[in-house]
Amino acid sequence: MKRSNIGIIGATGAVGQEILALLEKRDFPLDTIKLFASPSSLGITKRFKNREISVEILNNNSFDELDIAFFSAGGSISKKYVPIAQRCGCTVIDNSSAFRMNPSVPLIIPEINSPDMKMHQGIIANPNCATIIMLMALAPLHKIARIKRIVVSTYQAASGAGARAMEDLLEETRSHFTNALYERKVIPFPYAFNLFLHNSARYDNDYCEEELKMIYETHKILKDENIRINATCVRVPVLRAHSESINVEFYDPIDTATAYQILQESPGIKIVEDRTSNRFPMPSDAVGQDEVICGRIRQDLSQKNTLDIWVVADQLLKGAALNAVQIAEILIQQPLKQVFCDQNI
Amino acid sequence: MKRSNIGIIGATGAVGQEILALLEKRDFPLDTIKLFASPSSLGITKRFKNREISVEILNNNSFDELDIAFFSAGGSISKKYVPIAQRCGCTVIDNSSAFRMNPSVPLIIPEINSPDMKMHQGIIANPNCATIIMLMALAPLHKIARIKRIVVSTYQAASGAGARAMEDLLEETRSHFTNALYERKVIPFPYAFNLFLHNSARYDNDYCEEELKMIYETHKILKDENIRINATCVRVPVLRAHSESINVEFYDPIDTATAYQILQESPGIKIVEDRTSNRFPMPSDAVGQDEVICGRIRQDLSQKNTLDIWVVADQLLKGAALNAVQIAEILIQQPLKQVFCDQNI
Repeated sequence: MKRSNIGIIGATGAVGQEILALLEKRDFPLDTIKLFASPSSLGITKRFKNREISVEILNNNSFDELDIAFFSAGGSISKKYVPIAQRCGCTVIDNSSAFRMNPSVPLIIPEINSPDMKMHQGIIANPNCATIIMLMALAPLHKIARIKRIVVSTYQAASGAGARAMEDLLEETRSHFTNALYERKVIPFPYAFNLFLHNSARYDNDYCEEELKMIYETHKILKDENIRINATCVRVPVLRAHSESINVEFYDPIDTATAYQILQESPGIKIVEDRTSNRFPMPSDAVGQDEVICGRIRQDLSQKNTLDIWVVADQLLKGAALNAVQIAEILIQQPLKQVFCDQNI
Repeated sequence: MKRSNIGIIGATGAVGQEILALLEKRDFPLDTIKLFASPSSLGITKRFKNREISVEILNNNSFDELDIAFFSAGGSISKKYVPIAQRCGCTVIDNSSAFRMNPSVPLIIPEINSPDMKMHQGIIANPNCATIIMLMALAPLHKIARIKRIVVSTYQAASGAGARAMEDLLEETRSHFTNALYERKVIPFPYAFNLFLHNSARYDNDYCEEELKMIYETHKILKDENIRINATCVRVPVLRAHSESINVEFYDPIDTATAYQILQESPGIKIVEDRTSNRFPMPSDAVGQDEVICGRIRQDLSQKNTLDIWVVADQLLKGAALNAVQIAEILIQQPLKQVFCDQNI
C-alpha cells in the first residue's frame, strides 16, 4: 500500500483535531502530515505520534506535495482552495457543503455507497453530519423495505457549530453558576439550559439549510429522489453527540424484529437499549464512539409499514472526522487518480 | 361571586408552588387557603399575600372545610385522597393522570373544551403538560381543517419530573465545573449536557406512558378518536419549558398564512419569530409566560395538507399550574355542585 502525504485544512478546529487523532489511532499509512489553519493559529503546534507539528498558514502552494487533503475549515475556504488542490493532483476529502451536490463529486458514507467513489475527479464530499447519522440507520432498512417518507426531528449538539460553539455552551453554562458575564462568540441565542431551531441560512420554502441538506443529500446518497423527507433541525445544550427522532414509512411491510436484526448486522451500527430499565441511546453513550447507536425501534401505531427509530452518534466522529478518514482509507487502496491541472469541477 | 376555601395538595412541589403564586397574582377570590404536603415538609411555611402559611400534613379530614382542592402530589396520592375529597363535597382539580381517562371526569383545557366541565361529578382532570401545549396550537387548526395524523417529537424540561429533577439538572451541571460529586435524586440517567428518552413506564406496544397520554388525552379532549398520533417524548437539559416539533396532516387544505392568522387570534397563544434573524420560539422565551408560544409554521414539502409547527411553553404554567387555576376560575363562576358522600367515581 502506497504511503501518502496528508494535509488537514482546518487542523485547529473541532473536526480537524479529530481527524488528526483518528489518523494516529487508526495508524493511517502516511509519509508526511501537514496541518493548516488560519493566520490566527500561527505558532500553534499539534501532537501526532510523539511529534509536535507546527500549524502552517494555508496558501496556494500548500498542496504541491500532498496526496490527500482533508478540508474542514468551512465552505468559503473549500470553495477557494479545493479547486487549487485538485489542480495540483491532490485528492480532496471535503467536509464542507461546498461541492456536495455537484454531480461530478461523489458524496460518500463508506458503509452505504463506497462504490460511488470510483467516479471521483479529485474531490470526494463528506456528507452533512445529521444526514450521515440518519442514513447509517435507514440505508440498510431502505434496501429491504424501500423508504416512502421520513419525518425527522434532530437534537443536535454544540459541536456541529464548531469548537467555539462548544466553548460557548460550556462557558455560558458555567457563568450561570458564577454570575460572571460571558459573551457568546458564535451562538446567537441563549444556550445554557436552552435550545433553539438550527440557525443555518433560511430558504424561501421556510426550510433552513441544514434541513435541506438532510433532504437533498439523502436523495443523492441513496440515489432515490422519490423519498419524501420532512426535517426539523434543533440545537440542544449537549456538547458533541447528535440525537435524532426518526419516523420512517416504508413501501413494504417491515416489523421491528426484522429492523433490529438488519441493524445488528450492519457495519458501524450498535444497538444500545435495556427495555426493562427504560434505557435507550443517549448522547453520553455516543461520545468518543465510532458506531452510530440505535435503539427503541417501535412500530408506529398511527400508520402501517412505519417505524420509529432513535439514533445517536458522535457528531465529530462518524458525523464528520471518522467518515472522512474512512473515505481516505478506501482512497489509498485505489490507484491514486492523476488529475490534469486545467480540469475544472 | 362566591369566595372559596382552597386547598393545595403537594404545595411544596414545583407545580404546587406555582399554583399558590398564580392564586395570588391573579387575585383568585378566596376566603381561606390551606397547604398540604408529605410529612417531610412539616414545619415549612409558604408566603401568600404577605402572610406565612404553614404546610399541613394531608389526612382524611383535610377536606372537611374546602370547596376546591388542587391535587399535585402524584398519582398515588390522588388515587387515595381524591375520592375522599369528593365525598366531602370538595371539588378536585387533579393534576395527576389518575382519573384523566375516567369517562365521568372531564379533562379540561379551558381555551378548548371548557363546556365539558359542566358534566363534572366533583373531579376535573388537568391534562398532561405535553398534551396541553400541543393541543393549544392544534385545536384551533383542527376546527378549520380537521387533523388526520400528528407526528410529534418533544423536548421536555426537567420541571416535568418535579422540583427535585430540576435540582438534579442544576446540581449535576454545576458539579461538571467543580468536579464535585453529585448524586442525582430522581433522574436515573446522566443529565448534565445529556438527554434521554422519557423514562415513564413502558407498555407492551413499546410506547411509554407519556407518549400514550399524548395520544389518548388528545382523543378525549378533541372528542375524535380517529386522529392518528405518533409521539416520541424526550427529556432535554432545559429547566422548565417544553418544546415540541409537530408535523400535522389535515384532511382539508390549510396554508401557512391561514394557520398563522388562526393562531394569532386564538386565546392563550403568542406567535414569536423573526425570520430574518432565524429567531423562533425558545424555552427561554416561555419561562414565566402564560402563553403557549408558536412559530416557524412551515408547509411540509413532503406531503400535501401538512404543516410543521414549533411550540414552546412553560411546563409549570400553562402545562400545569396555570391550566389548573384557569379551571378553578371557571368553576367558581358555576354553582358549586353538591356531591353525595357515597357517590363513587
